[in-house]
Amino acid sequence: MMGPVPASRESLPMLMDLYELTMARGYLEEGVGQTPTAFDVFYRRNPDGGGFAIFAGLEQILDYLETLRFTPNDVAYLRSLGLFTEGFLSWLAGFRFSGTVTAVPEGTVVYPDEPLMTVCGPVMEAQLIETAILNQINHQTLIATKARRMVAAAKGRSVADFGARRAHNADAALYGARAAYIGGVDSTATVLAGQLFGIPVSGTMAHSWVMFHDSEHDAFERFARSYPEDCVLLVDTYDVLKSGVPNAIRVAREVFEPEGHRLKGIRIDSGDLAYLSKEARRMLDEAGLGDCAISVSNSLDENTIRSLIDQEAPIDAFGVDERLATAKSDPVFGAVYKLVAVGKDRACIPRIKVSETFEKITNPGRKKLWRVYDAQGCSVGDLITSPEEDPREGKSFRYIDPRSPWKEREFVGCSYRELHEIVIEGGKRVAAPRPLEDIRAYVTRQLEDEVWSEEQRLENPHAHYLDMSLDYYQTKISLLGESRRPHRAP
Amino acid sequence: MMGPVPASRESLPMLMDLYELTMARGYLEEGVGQTPTAFDVFYRRNPDGGGFAIFAGLEQILDYLETLRFTPNDVAYLRSLGLFTEGFLSWLAGFRFSGTVTAVPEGTVVYPDEPLMTVCGPVMEAQLIETAILNQINHQTLIATKARRMVAAAKGRSVADFGARRAHNADAALYGARAAYIGGVDSTATVLAGQLFGIPVSGTMAHSWVMFHDSEHDAFERFARSYPEDCVLLVDTYDVLKSGVPNAIRVAREVFEPEGHRLKGIRIDSGDLAYLSKEARRMLDEAGLGDCAISVSNSLDENTIRSLIDQEAPIDAFGVDERLATAKSDPVFGAVYKLVAVGKDRACIPRIKVSETFEKITNPGRKKLWRVYDAQGCSVGDLITSPEEDPREGKSFRYIDPRSPWKEREFVGCSYRELHEIVIEGGKRVAAPRPLEDIRAYVTRQLEDEVWSEEQRLENPHAHYLDMSLDYYQTKISLLGESRRPHRAP
Repeated sequence: MMGPVPASRESLPMLMDLYELTMARGYLEEGVGQTPTAFDVFYRRNPDGGGFAIFAGLEQILDYLETLRFTPNDVAYLRSLGLFTEGFLSWLAGFRFSGTVTAVPEGTVVYPDEPLMTVCGPVMEAQLIETAILNQINHQTLIATKARRMVAAAKGRSVADFGARRAHNADAALYGARAAYIGGVDSTATVLAGQLFGIPVSGTMAHSWVMFHDSEHDAFERFARSYPEDCVLLVDTYDVLKSGVPNAIRVAREVFEPEGHRLKGIRIDSGDLAYLSKEARRMLDEAGLGDCAISVSNSLDENTIRSLIDQEAPIDAFGVDERLATAKSDPVFGAVYKLVAVGKDRACIPRIKVSETFEKITNPGRKKLWRVYDAQGCSVGDLITSPEEDPREGKSFRYIDPRSPWKEREFVGCSYRELHEIVIEGGKRVAAPRPLEDIRAYVTRQLEDEVWSEEQRLENPHAHYLDMSLDYYQTKISLLGESRRPHRAP
Repeated sequence: MMGPVPASRESLPMLMDLYELTMARGYLEEGVGQTPTAFDVFYRRNPDGGGFAIFAGLEQILDYLETLRFTPNDVAYLRSLGLFTEGFLSWLAGFRFSGTVTAVPEGTVVYPDEPLMTVCGPVMEAQLIETAILNQINHQTLIATKARRMVAAAKGRSVADFGARRAHNADAALYGARAAYIGGVDSTATVLAGQLFGIPVSGTMAHSWVMFHDSEHDAFERFARSYPEDCVLLVDTYDVLKSGVPNAIRVAREVFEPEGHRLKGIRIDSGDLAYLSKEARRMLDEAGLGDCAISVSNSLDENTIRSLIDQEAPIDAFGVDERLATAKSDPVFGAVYKLVAVGKDRACIPRIKVSETFEKITNPGRKKLWRVYDAQGCSVGDLITSPEEDPREGKSFRYIDPRSPWKEREFVGCSYRELHEIVIEGGKRVAAPRPLEDIRAYVTRQLEDEVWSEEQRLENPHAHYLDMSLDYYQTKISLLGESRRPHRAP
């Protein structure tokens, strides 16, 4: 048990912070373990100063919650810590998640401070699953959002994920490829992600192929003979313009022309990609290879991609690697899991976490989250209401922008979509797995049809409005007042 | 096969880039698949501008190489891509790694441009394992190195890993905890890492525990009754100095004093940690709780830890989270896997990758790596020699610093340790798994006894010398000359 036993998915239940277990034992002993609670998952800041995030990782969470069990080995390990009572360990041995989960659909464009997911269930259960849920959402949402920025910068040119070798271990490569595909990347080099998720796989050759052979020309010729219909040659092992491109042209003439095949592309992985791609394009065109695509790679991100396009570099495809796989420029997605309500004597008591800054005060209690659309179908804001409210019931709906609460406003002629769906009910999964292609298409549809382009700017985007109904806002403010009463201090 | 099938360790063989497979098929068809090759793993730059890195992840790589097989499912998926011949697929179905691997021991303090690991084997085999090896080394070496920086800044105070929820998926949390422990962190909150690797686990309580109860005092009292011997109270849910610390003191008096127990500690997770820890210390001391430890957390890294210590904040333990788990300030460790030699007609032909900058030119061919110690046992530099050379054979050894090759120099009165050990020979693992505690102690021993303190500065450290024997240097230079001959271009 103490050795380097390979981990498997089955050991994910133990991916939790110790305090989740110590608190659960505490709740059990106090006799309140079955108290109903609600926890919201939300985040506070968009990565990279962007205007939104793309919610991803839900499918893995549903799978985890549905199959969550503790094995006899798990229980034996926990017993060995000397922290847990036999009563608690036997509860763990029989553990099944019995709660209800609602969430925005995977691939939804989301914004700070709104609930992405709500877990309702006995406090002992709901507390135990915090780390696994956050770990999955934080990673996949981060990468989907980063991928979208790169795809946006590429303006319709193809983008491929090459990042596995620099990802933070195997899962980061695998689920990162999934998230990147949701975010709009066209393919991945990671074979396992192709196998498990059906993502299109792509790849060319490494420098080692060229270095292995006695000459670059020899290397290219050999590869061309093996892959006459899908040949992309890496041209920067020695010298792109003096050796790589001329050798590629020569092989196109010597190997492909006689057989009626075409050289599909070249890849440049170092040097000044703007200059080299322009010169290579000119040389290829002059050689009658106008259909030979140019792809580039080498630590690209949305900024270098945009710069290359601004310079009119004739690039057809971008390979993105470490800066996607690690979200290098902003690698922490800070979703949190906060208690928002406790059930008591059949009532639902909202809970609030106070802070000196208004933005860090949580949105307490049960709530509904709505996306508000204008007559053109553009998303003009999101709206939090009390659970009983339904803004669809009137022609106009009064609301408050919590950042300027002295103004009451109205949505007129708007339509509303409730964003949360029930995905797990009483421990049973009720949402069917969604095909990855559908999730990906949903992302594109929202960004093309619903989300203002001003929110999609890579820098200084318009901040999406998160408004509150009068009723919900008053609940929050009165709770804030209560929490400041001195009775909590001795 | 196309659905969200949970991944398991057994699917790791497919964690590869597609081009590794397309190249392997190419080698097979060319009839050169069994050609012996050598690939070196090395990196070019220390993270965060530091003076060294700590090599980690070897155990997982050895496990992977020893068990590497392709299942019928794997082969069926690859067949479905339409890229591979039946001959190649049947070779894959029978695949076993048959090569020989040497590596520096896990936990070794390492430096840029020197081989951390060398894989020797038939080119088809050696090419297939590139991504899985780099992915593991890049992640664990990154986190071990980052952890060391935080531990160094903490100057002997305890450091605990709390980062799982922000790590890049489950493996990053699990193997990140392992790497952080190698780097010197004292414990982890991640239960799975405790279970699989025997790392001490630690934890306190979350804000949700406090928010769940009707008052902070009630929450503290309940927790104290469950954990009389191991009670650390989180004091910042409402107000640290007006509510949290006074309630903690009250509980220490009311619950612990009558039973002869002591309050073990408090934790502060927000606000000005320097100010709050000083005030809390004063209040605790005045209440006769001088033995109650103060721990702090909240996006700490080596810089904030150092700043807190500079301000003489009376902090006993640091919880480090997202900035460790993602290595936020520099999240890409760029180890590469480069072909350095090809066997031909019983000779070993060195290969070099050329670049315009000398630092990016690879170190070609087979080689030995030595650590050079002065009479006091301090490591004064590392030395690359040709495989036949042994610097231990003379009293002095002439060498070249490749950055100033016009000076020939001598090591006099030095001793030498060959850094690479054979870990896999002919496909069989020959290195026994090393206990994690031994790896961790080896890191400490090197840093305390061997590595100059000037190399351990967090900023602007002394750059460790990487020297070359005359013989090895001349091989490299003459190969460089050859590679620039124009015959490679058409």
